Amino acid sequence: MKTPAYAAPAAKAPLAPFTVERREPGAHEVLIDIKYCGVCHSDIHQARDEWGGSIFPMVPGHEIVGVVAKVGNAVSRWNAGDVVGVGCFVDSCRHCEACRAGEEQFCSEGMSVTYNGYERSGGKLDRSRPTYGGYSTRITVDENYVLRIPAGIPLDRAAPLLCAGITTYSPLRHFGVEAGDKIAVVGLGGLGHMAVKIAKAMGAHVTVLSHSESKRDDARRLGADDFLVTKDETVFTQHAGRFDFILDTISAQHDYNAYLGLLRRDGTMVLVGVPDPTPVHAFSLIGGRKRLAGSLIGGIRETQEMLDFCAAHGVASDIELIPIQQINQAYERMIKGDVRYRFVIDIASLGKAA
Amino acid sequence: MKTPAYAAPAAKAPLAPFTVERREPGAHEVLIDIKYCGVCHSDIHQARDEWGGSIFPMVPGHEIVGVVAKVGNAVSRWNAGDVVGVGCFVDSCRHCEACRAGEEQFCSEGMSVTYNGYERSGGKLDRSRPTYGGYSTRITVDENYVLRIPAGIPLDRAAPLLCAGITTYSPLRHFGVEAGDKIAVVGLGGLGHMAVKIAKAMGAHVTVLSHSESKRDDARRLGADDFLVTKDETVFTQHAGRFDFILDTISAQHDYNAYLGLLRRDGTMVLVGVPDPTPVHAFSLIGGRKRLAGSLIGGIRETQEMLDFCAAHGVASDIELIPIQQINQAYERMIKGDVRYRFVIDIASLGKAA
Repeated sequence: MKTPAYAAPAAKAPLAPFTVERREPGAHEVLIDIKYCGVCHSDIHQARDEWGGSIFPMVPGHEIVGVVAKVGNAVSRWNAGDVVGVGCFVDSCRHCEACRAGEEQFCSEGMSVTYNGYERSGGKLDRSRPTYGGYSTRITVDENYVLRIPAGIPLDRAAPLLCAGITTYSPLRHFGVEAGDKIAVVGLGGLGHMAVKIAKAMGAHVTVLSHSESKRDDARRLGADDFLVTKDETVFTQHAGRFDFILDTISAQHDYNAYLGLLRRDGTMVLVGVPDPTPVHAFSLIGGRKRLAGSLIGGIRETQEMLDFCAAHGVASDIELIPIQQINQAYERMIKGDVRYRFVIDIASLGKAA
Repeated sequence: MKTPAYAAPAAKAPLAPFTVERREPGAHEVLIDIKYCGVCHSDIHQARDEWGGSIFPMVPGHEIVGVVAKVGNAVSRWNAGDVVGVGCFVDSCRHCEACRAGEEQFCSEGMSVTYNGYERSGGKLDRSRPTYGGYSTRITVDENYVLRIPAGIPLDRAAPLLCAGITTYSPLRHFGVEAGDKIAVVGLGGLGHMAVKIAKAMGAHVTVLSHSESKRDDARRLGADDFLVTKDETVFTQHAGRFDFILDTISAQHDYNAYLGLLRRDGTMVLVGVPDPTPVHAFSLIGGRKRLAGSLIGGIRETQEMLDFCAAHGVASDIELIPIQQINQAYERMIKGDVRYRFVIDIASLGKAA
């Protein structure tokens, strides 16, 4: 099925109209009409081959929300008309320890990521079948890798939950953040703004640490209890030992040691951004038996749990809805940090253009 | 009470005979005749002022084993003739959250370390009263900071448990190492050799990672199940994802990322050595939701637990017993890694010399 899309033809080229072939759903597959697709900063990194190994032409997009158009004849869980989502991966090996534990994001054979990766044939990654993401009008996905979007979340504002939502929900949940915990969110961007909303919904006392004063009002509006400007280095001594948990969403390089000093004894700081390698002083961890950890999206089961949690707590992303024709300008604005807090593509605009 | 000792008179000077004044035990204090004192690498760092802020003259030594000579009139737990130990600290504030939790090593006002620190007056650190350590024939210590050496551990081989023992026992226990866990001990020195013995006694499957082949036989003799030479870099790919837990005892700089790659998903690597700041790649933690943590000795309660554990499992340190007159040569040998695995000073040699 010829399907309108937008693709990066090469690392240095802007995104432009493109056509992808989508397959008729197999016995266990679902064909989805895409309504909205969020724009993740990793779309830019990959479309510009900043991490290396990119596959071109590339149709980015892994924050997909749509409606089931058609299901394979063995599919019982999904019906045409269901409102569904697809996140950062569309398949995995299904038999490794991680997959069996419902932690498909750590599949030992590697996930089939939603774009810039490969579909599977007979369970194995098939390098003749690249994946194409959500900057397109439809996608065919295995029924087990589809999420249900609960009623009550506006669909455009639900899309970023599929990556930014689960990336922040999973570490908060996995590392045991509880009501009353004092947590800090470092950086108030696409990830950080979701972290604030979700942590508040969990009942935590949330402090935003941001480089500049400019986001103070937003932080409060999003639900933060406190806001600290890290440009003022006295913050790190004045608030030493204050937090039970720190979620560090910054991708630019910064001094982990300074932030580790803000943790109480036995506190944990979790990285979800990927700065360049950063020096860690052993004393930053030894003094207070602290932990520096990382977290990567979440499995299918936990992603569904996150969506249900967000629906129950009225949590959704703050977005700017754009037609796909503005995607290259949106990328430029994101690089400048000029988005509050996630661009979401209205895929109807693509249908018209194609 | 004038007490024979050995002291470093200044940062650049060798240790030499010295006399310290020990007080008569107060109501809640215990006077200990010191029999043995282990030699920790941190004795060298501090005697040479390599960490800065050293207090001279300095009598090092925080792996102290001896016999109670006299107790204060309010002491009920200890009697003359009891075999006891003193570890890395002799007092703490006693009222902060850490002290109340029995984690005095993280005292928010700072421990009174056994040497190169200060006694307390009215609960506060008193900078007019430096502490002097175990390179001496006796010491007066508060009853609450004294450990019981259980019967069955040779006293000279018990001394290093007070620092090297608890430094390795505490993270193994705190981070939940259990029978059957696959653990790695990085570095086979004073700390590493205790880690192997204690982890084996806990029932773990223990692999030693060492830079060179030379310690393979020792590792096996100490109880290790496997031995990997890290000079061969293929070790890091061949054994990727193998370990549940890594205890990293190395103080020389090394690549944390390489070792983090050896952890399974959700595994933890704990630093007990203090190399120079070392770059950490966020991907090393994010890929597998891994944790890099630190640990610092242990509290009094846990140190007693460790001593009882070692006695129950027949665990003691492998030592070279020396007269104190050889301390400067011992330091030189330790710097070259030429000790298997801990020098212990026979304090009787000091009595004779004084």
